[in-house]
Amino acid sequence: MYNIAILGASGYTGAELIRLIAGHSSMKIKALGANSKAGQTMAEVFPHLRHMDVPALVTIDEIDFSDIDLCFCALPHKTSQEIIAALPKDLKIVDLSADFRLRDPEEYTKWYGNPHVALEQQKEAVYGLTEFYRDEIKNARLVAGTGCNAATGQFALRPLIEKGVIDLDDIILDLKCAVSGAGRSLKENLLHAELSEGYHAYAVGGTHRHLGEFDQEFSAVAGRPIKVQFTPHLIPANRGILATVYVKGDAQVIHDTLAAAYADEPFIEVLPMGEAPSTRHIRGSNFCYIGVVADRIDGRTIVVAALDNLTKGSSGQALQNANLMLGIEETEGLMMAPLFP
Amino acid sequence: MYNIAILGASGYTGAELIRLIAGHSSMKIKALGANSKAGQTMAEVFPHLRHMDVPALVTIDEIDFSDIDLCFCALPHKTSQEIIAALPKDLKIVDLSADFRLRDPEEYTKWYGNPHVALEQQKEAVYGLTEFYRDEIKNARLVAGTGCNAATGQFALRPLIEKGVIDLDDIILDLKCAVSGAGRSLKENLLHAELSEGYHAYAVGGTHRHLGEFDQEFSAVAGRPIKVQFTPHLIPANRGILATVYVKGDAQVIHDTLAAAYADEPFIEVLPMGEAPSTRHIRGSNFCYIGVVADRIDGRTIVVAALDNLTKGSSGQALQNANLMLGIEETEGLMMAPLFP
Amino acid sequence: MYNIAILGASGYTGAELIRLIAGHSSMKIKALGANSKAGQTMAEVFPHLRHMDVPALVTIDEIDFSDIDLCFCALPHKTSQEIIAALPKDLKIVDLSADFRLRDPEEYTKWYGNPHVALEQQKEAVYGLTEFYRDEIKNARLVAGTGCNAATGQFALRPLIEKGVIDLDDIILDLKCAVSGAGRSLKENLLHAELSEGYHAYAVGGTHRHLGEFDQEFSAVAGRPIKVQFTPHLIPANRGILATVYVKGDAQVIHDTLAAAYADEPFIEVLPMGEAPSTRHIRGSNFCYIGVVADRIDGRTIVVAALDNLTKGSSGQALQNANLMLGIEETEGLMMAPLFP
Amino acid sequence: MYNIAILGASGYTGAELIRLIAGHSSMKIKALGANSKAGQTMAEVFPHLRHMDVPALVTIDEIDFSDIDLCFCALPHKTSQEIIAALPKDLKIVDLSADFRLRDPEEYTKWYGNPHVALEQQKEAVYGLTEFYRDEIKNARLVAGTGCNAATGQFALRPLIEKGVIDLDDIILDLKCAVSGAGRSLKENLLHAELSEGYHAYAVGGTHRHLGEFDQEFSAVAGRPIKVQFTPHLIPANRGILATVYVKGDAQVIHDTLAAAYADEPFIEVLPMGEAPSTRHIRGSNFCYIGVVADRIDGRTIVVAALDNLTKGSSGQALQNANLMLGIEETEGLMMAPLFP
Repeated sequence: MYNIAILGASGYTGAELIRLIAGHSSMKIKALGANSKAGQTMAEVFPHLRHMDVPALVTIDEIDFSDIDLCFCALPHKTSQEIIAALPKDLKIVDLSADFRLRDPEEYTKWYGNPHVALEQQKEAVYGLTEFYRDEIKNARLVAGTGCNAATGQFALRPLIEKGVIDLDDIILDLKCAVSGAGRSLKENLLHAELSEGYHAYAVGGTHRHLGEFDQEFSAVAGRPIKVQFTPHLIPANRGILATVYVKGDAQVIHDTLAAAYADEPFIEVLPMGEAPSTRHIRGSNFCYIGVVADRIDGRTIVVAALDNLTKGSSGQALQNANLMLGIEETEGLMMAPLFP
Repeated sequence: MYNIAILGASGYTGAELIRLIAGHSSMKIKALGANSKAGQTMAEVFPHLRHMDVPALVTIDEIDFSDIDLCFCALPHKTSQEIIAALPKDLKIVDLSADFRLRDPEEYTKWYGNPHVALEQQKEAVYGLTEFYRDEIKNARLVAGTGCNAATGQFALRPLIEKGVIDLDDIILDLKCAVSGAGRSLKENLLHAELSEGYHAYAVGGTHRHLGEFDQEFSAVAGRPIKVQFTPHLIPANRGILATVYVKGDAQVIHDTLAAAYADEPFIEVLPMGEAPSTRHIRGSNFCYIGVVADRIDGRTIVVAALDNLTKGSSGQALQNANLMLGIEETEGLMMAPLFP
Repeated sequence: MYNIAILGASGYTGAELIRLIAGHSSMKIKALGANSKAGQTMAEVFPHLRHMDVPALVTIDEIDFSDIDLCFCALPHKTSQEIIAALPKDLKIVDLSADFRLRDPEEYTKWYGNPHVALEQQKEAVYGLTEFYRDEIKNARLVAGTGCNAATGQFALRPLIEKGVIDLDDIILDLKCAVSGAGRSLKENLLHAELSEGYHAYAVGGTHRHLGEFDQEFSAVAGRPIKVQFTPHLIPANRGILATVYVKGDAQVIHDTLAAAYADEPFIEVLPMGEAPSTRHIRGSNFCYIGVVADRIDGRTIVVAALDNLTKGSSGQALQNANLMLGIEETEGLMMAPLFP
Repeated sequence: MYNIAILGASGYTGAELIRLIAGHSSMKIKALGANSKAGQTMAEVFPHLRHMDVPALVTIDEIDFSDIDLCFCALPHKTSQEIIAALPKDLKIVDLSADFRLRDPEEYTKWYGNPHVALEQQKEAVYGLTEFYRDEIKNARLVAGTGCNAATGQFALRPLIEKGVIDLDDIILDLKCAVSGAGRSLKENLLHAELSEGYHAYAVGGTHRHLGEFDQEFSAVAGRPIKVQFTPHLIPANRGILATVYVKGDAQVIHDTLAAAYADEPFIEVLPMGEAPSTRHIRGSNFCYIGVVADRIDGRTIVVAALDNLTKGSSGQALQNANLMLGIEETEGLMMAPLFP
């Protein structure tokens, strides 16, 4: 049994980690850190988890990391790097924030606005897109979880860029994101009264921070700078990201390429040619569904990918990586079926 | 490993059974019956379950019950009794329909309109409200699952009626029911466009069929005829039943009575005095949360109970009963944490 | 053409007032006060009203009230009384807050926690439940809008209490309230992610402030102290209040009493006996629908009332009162049909 | 006062027409045709319109068209052409179906599957996109309402194609459509339980019928064949279409072109450069909001258009055209502000 700590346990990704670990056969939650809610019990912070036998929340300073085997960090970016810089240097860490995703510190500052203060840790961090960094993750000490939008887009596109089967200079990602991706922050446009009949694009024009990840990863795979267009939209649903990706390339070749790339992957399902997924197919699960459809215009193809932003897009992915880092079966605790309806 | 058949596998309760059994350590789905969709694969009927290794759907006639250890029947009422009458007489069955809930055939006809055609089976059926019929269920061949509304109301009220701590002639249940309780039937008032900003009472005035169960069970517990008032409301949410129960009795006594009754129950959580539950606390789980609050008027108390209609209210309850019938640990496959948000 | 000022123009009830006045033939918005957003244009504060020719927002101090014929005050309670105490003493005012609803200052302090600081204005204020205070409102200078829950409950009950056709000591109001009634405040339980699948009771046990209004009004009508039970529930919908009222009395007499009381009312629709309304029938309109159904238990009746909290429950009611105060046709600007779906 | 008939009065667009005409100063509903619900009153078919003084529903055969000044046809396609072929030849008609939108009968058959049976009427029909066919509509006898998706896309693109300021061979429309656009049809994917947490693309790859309109209109404007890519998505909201349009061209030029094209239009609002609209800004109104944002990639621009599918996308547009055909002020009955929240 491995001892687990979760820092930032009072947000949505923290709650999702606890939900998943509840069904894990060889992890035990030993410490829950949440500075703003330290002293509260789980039943107070998350009444839906009151049945669980987990410790009360404490400040991060109060945690004794000596008997912790792995620590999940579900803190906001910027805070995360400050905390992680001060943690034991041999502690295995899966960070869910954006702080260690970008390898180039200048790129980090460009997208996030602040200089990076944990450059040493940043150097050793492994990018946590499991399906493409599996070997590195197995040996990593610090893994940086992929952003939920960045994960969805990469699942749809990465093998296509790698194999060069699409026009690399004309890629459009139109994403429809459920609201839990915005976290538990109190903003007017996240209120039920405003969102439920008010969906809209945001960060239009290429200003969303996950573009930093797309640029880094797609360029690395292509061997030259790649820039995609990416427009996210806020949708009145709780969980789910649906990426509609417009590419130039042959639909059959694209389908074959994706099917081959994910043939052995336990969580990536490439649908039969011509089918497109719905977010209702993956909710609450660690699966990513990918569909490929030929457009009526020759040489144009639509790739649609769907995953749950809190599971495969964040906490599920983090647990998948933690399993690898601890030498546990990769799928352990993650094979739950989606919740439908 | 026990071999399981599910009849009526293409509805919501069928899908929920499959989801739950996917996480069960000692059950294997051997046959899926759905006459209207026979010949289709699971991926076609429920794309969200395409990762599961389960057989394609067949007609019920095609199923060989000789190697089935237990059969879940998730068919509509009336159909269910016809099918079950024709099944092997020694097959263990958990029926999720209303067909075997009422012990008096005349009561059945009064509430459901048709004469009962499986009177022999009806006689041996055990009422499936696990927490109150545990011993009978362990030895039962045929268990009749409690209705989702009837279960919610009984969890709130049954110990209070049994102990006589409330006025038995003045009980009001105001229920708020999520839409999946209406099943996958195609009706105008279940359309998103009509329901999402249109909630309303239905079966007002005491015409809802689950009243037959309330009458039967509460009268049995009280030892004399008991009639409650019960008004269900359709709410624009997918899963959940919230019962607001108005009783006359002392709040502290009521809280003590419920806390004592459920002290050892794994799925019933009585909240601290004065707290009331939300449906977000139990979604996707087998838990039922119960809160007790004293009204400002002396001698009046509000009991609020919440559960997931598809899990504890139907398929989760069915699995709990199946565990008992097969001699498996009662909680096996049912301890998953709620999905939040 | 009457010149109108709106104070607190940046909240939901302010926006609703502007929407309604946009369709009014003899009112012109002359000033919009909102201290926190002063200097902004309507297009910035409410993009959906950008087509309207209305002045930019200013601080309340900046408004010249000398050419204002009537002022709507859509400020939070406590702020409202402070502002109104300082306004010209001959300015006609419709206040939407709770500050002038309770005639007894001690009752105000009991329910709202702070002492009242505009006692002089409180004395002259008329309670704004139009259908029952029409003559007083016509001659009033200051009208205090009824709370949205209090209005719904009174429409269902007031004629019944006045005529003594129900048991006055056993009245239960179970209200289902859409989220816009909570205003634009930033609270976790109002987030889409938490509310959309998480409905719940709140202020359980008789602590909701609108009980002050029920107590005052029902006692006045009955000629003796009357206390009702009232439990509101937060529902995942934007607009609407559905009151399910449990009373003891004969259903036919109750229906007759309500039908007679509202026979000439333009906005109150008593449905045929046995029918119950849905919130989808009144959304965006100034109508209140009332249904009466006999329970299966003799002598028990359910009255269900539905209205739009922002229209008939707040800004529509305010405009109806303003029409009366200015000598305009009462229904002017208010006969728009509900928005469905 | 003009006498109006509405055929197909029991669907969503029929209800919306009645809602709008309720606020119109010079139209009176004289006949409501709905074969399947003939004999019912408005209160039975649409309880939310029970306050309106309108005739009961009749079969279309029963209507005396001799005193009808204009007839709205809100019937399903194919039925519509059959009915209209049999109506008086001098009756002014606004058809909301797809039957008379495509000028080429072969294109009609290609997209809709059946041969056209009202070829004579098809010849005289005027395409009802008011802002671009205003003069023709004024003199038309039969106007064919633009499809809701087709209208949204054309508002965003038509001036850009006409002026040639974008690459005409690389246009992508990604549409997010609320569910009322699918009408009141009973389909599983329109159920609240399936849609509310299950959004998805449909008609992927260029199979949606509104492409026939795009092809016809864009080619006519460009003077050569134009084909766009168009992927609609079903979103869990009731009203609204949000079109995210990806084009190649200079953002400032595009913004200037749209601003100039719509400078005098009462219902089309071009937002300040860099702003994008939300569906909450236009719900229940006849407005279309258009935003233009430059992408981070030079020469790429995103145009986002939002309108209410039932109002500007259908019934509001129809009323706007009817006003023109009858010589009434174009905006009469259509200047209501959006419903927010």
